[in-house]
Amino acid sequence: MKRFLTFLSVIMLFLGLSAADMRYVDALGLTVVNRAQPQDTGFARLGADRYPELPAQVAEYSGHPTGLAVAFRTDSRTVKARWHTATPPGGANRTPISYCGLDMYIMRDSTWVFAGVGQPAFSRSHEATIVAGMDGSMHDCLLYLPLWVALDSLSIGVDDNAVIEPLPDPFGHRVVVMGSSITHGASASRPGLTYTARLQRATGWEMPNLGYSGLCKLEPFYARIIASTEADAFVFDGFSNPSAEQIDSRLKEFVDIIRAAHPDTPLIFLQTEVRESGNFDLKKRAFEQRKREAAARGMQSLFDAGYRDIYFIDPGMPLDPGHDDTVDGVHPTDAGFEKIVDHLLPRLRIILGRYGIK
Amino acid sequence: MKRFLTFLSVIMLFLGLSAADMRYVDALGLTVVNRAQPQDTGFARLGADRYPELPAQVAEYSGHPTGLAVAFRTDSRTVKARWHTATPPGGANRTPISYCGLDMYIMRDSTWVFAGVGQPAFSRSHEATIVAGMDGSMHDCLLYLPLWVALDSLSIGVDDNAVIEPLPDPFGHRVVVMGSSITHGASASRPGLTYTARLQRATGWEMPNLGYSGLCKLEPFYARIIASTEADAFVFDGFSNPSAEQIDSRLKEFVDIIRAAHPDTPLIFLQTEVRESGNFDLKKRAFEQRKREAAARGMQSLFDAGYRDIYFIDPGMPLDPGHDDTVDGVHPTDAGFEKIVDHLLPRLRIILGRYGIK
Repeated sequence: MKRFLTFLSVIMLFLGLSAADMRYVDALGLTVVNRAQPQDTGFARLGADRYPELPAQVAEYSGHPTGLAVAFRTDSRTVKARWHTATPPGGANRTPISYCGLDMYIMRDSTWVFAGVGQPAFSRSHEATIVAGMDGSMHDCLLYLPLWVALDSLSIGVDDNAVIEPLPDPFGHRVVVMGSSITHGASASRPGLTYTARLQRATGWEMPNLGYSGLCKLEPFYARIIASTEADAFVFDGFSNPSAEQIDSRLKEFVDIIRAAHPDTPLIFLQTEVRESGNFDLKKRAFEQRKREAAARGMQSLFDAGYRDIYFIDPGMPLDPGHDDTVDGVHPTDAGFEKIVDHLLPRLRIILGRYGIK
Repeated sequence: MKRFLTFLSVIMLFLGLSAADMRYVDALGLTVVNRAQPQDTGFARLGADRYPELPAQVAEYSGHPTGLAVAFRTDSRTVKARWHTATPPGGANRTPISYCGLDMYIMRDSTWVFAGVGQPAFSRSHEATIVAGMDGSMHDCLLYLPLWVALDSLSIGVDDNAVIEPLPDPFGHRVVVMGSSITHGASASRPGLTYTARLQRATGWEMPNLGYSGLCKLEPFYARIIASTEADAFVFDGFSNPSAEQIDSRLKEFVDIIRAAHPDTPLIFLQTEVRESGNFDLKKRAFEQRKREAAARGMQSLFDAGYRDIYFIDPGMPLDPGHDDTVDGVHPTDAGFEKIVDHLLPRLRIILGRYGIK
């Protein structure tokens, strides 16, 4: 009994010391940025319950924290995280860090600089040190959340004597992006390396991510989501998922639904990528070629019909002519996203600069 | 009974038709390139049984097909694969395609162009269509094997009426690369996007890959592997894994063991990368800085001592100053490997050009 009490006191001392090392705060008490609509709470990028017509998979993806980030200030030397997720879907073409992990940036010299990742476990409960050994001065931190799994809870751990507090939302104009898996983030290596997150850090715009992998085919319900979303501009990767026939039949209605709600907001459509899977597969190549032609034809029809404040960036997603910028012939790697961002950034600045969005 | 026989005959007809669609040949009957030593067979990149002093993990990694590729010619419109592996280790910072999948290139206009991947299943038995819809003309194909798992068997499937035959080894000079996880391929998105595989396709050199993730610390047994390996040149990513102290104490012996066997073969050492994990972690930054200083000091000592045909490329692995070229602060993504290759390729050509290696 005496030995047991000694053992117990050692255990309690150990637990006490561990607890004293770090303290954890609920991320929802900090600042969550990039929600599509301000009334939402929690870790869903969009409250799907307001859209009962959504197909189940679209509703499920809406509940993922894709694109969301937690903004906070801390002078902690170490930043850790504990988070719980649903069972992630896996995927041969992605890293667990991207679909189930965390990715943190710290402001230095007016630039968001990579600080560390939270590596997920192969389970639903995750705990990781994101960065350690820091200098103890106050830092502005931006922690991107998993791209492809429901996030049940997230706590940020800091040194017990350190400050952690919400960062005032560091982003200005709101540019909402809707699209395919390419927008959703397949296959960025980290949650903060999607093209929307890269553009966000380069511009200072709030950029909610409404990428719906494989599902974004210009259906009217997507237009209704956009119609009920406030933004300074909308960007659409709308030609990656639908077939040529779907583009032909759906584009005008898609735009009309949005225009009824947002008569003057700039709508920027991106031409889809030339997929590497069409290098040798003649059927895929023809299918993709027809899609791109339908996109160009559909946009021209809108211009001819006098629609205004609508833009078409073509090419919208240029990849390396060496054909080594995707993981699987379809989904850009970080090398692909880097080229896409280098291409889009100056073009978006020119277009949106006309609207005072800088 | 009659219905059962009808059912059986339908099943057999179905199986017969399926079998008639494609036929599978053992990849070991085709041409396997990039083996470190010519006496090896099977899918091991190096026969570890000749080196009984190897630690278990080094021996295990030697048995992986890292860097190996199967070269063949076919006029099949579809290329499929069936392969069996050991249970892959997973890894939060990598894609299953990279560590357990296949990655094929086809020669077009004197260039190896990406054709398709073989996506692994989440099991030990895998079957995938790599490319379909091709034009039916004869193509030279190069299929890179998984980076991080033992490969028990691999069969290539082609249309039943198509030709498939070994391609004469398409590569010339042998440049053997030894190093860390960065050489091993973490975190290329596909097996063919390691920096050694990219350099191979750009140069036409045979480039066996002796990357040993986390383990390559200039130990004498690695030098003995190199001493018993024939090549036109050796490249070492030798400063990524060891500490500054290990570099200080081991580099000269490492070179001396190799020099005794290969008195004139060029030995090219790469300075290690500046890790993004040192952006804010002052301890990691200092540790890495000391490693790089030890590497530069050690190389200078060799030059001062009159060693010849030894080169030091510094920086050896330049990454984006924006610090977004790794998946986890350490391991380059495809964006990082692209920059490394762009940097190394002209430098390797200049150095090796002096030895007639073009």
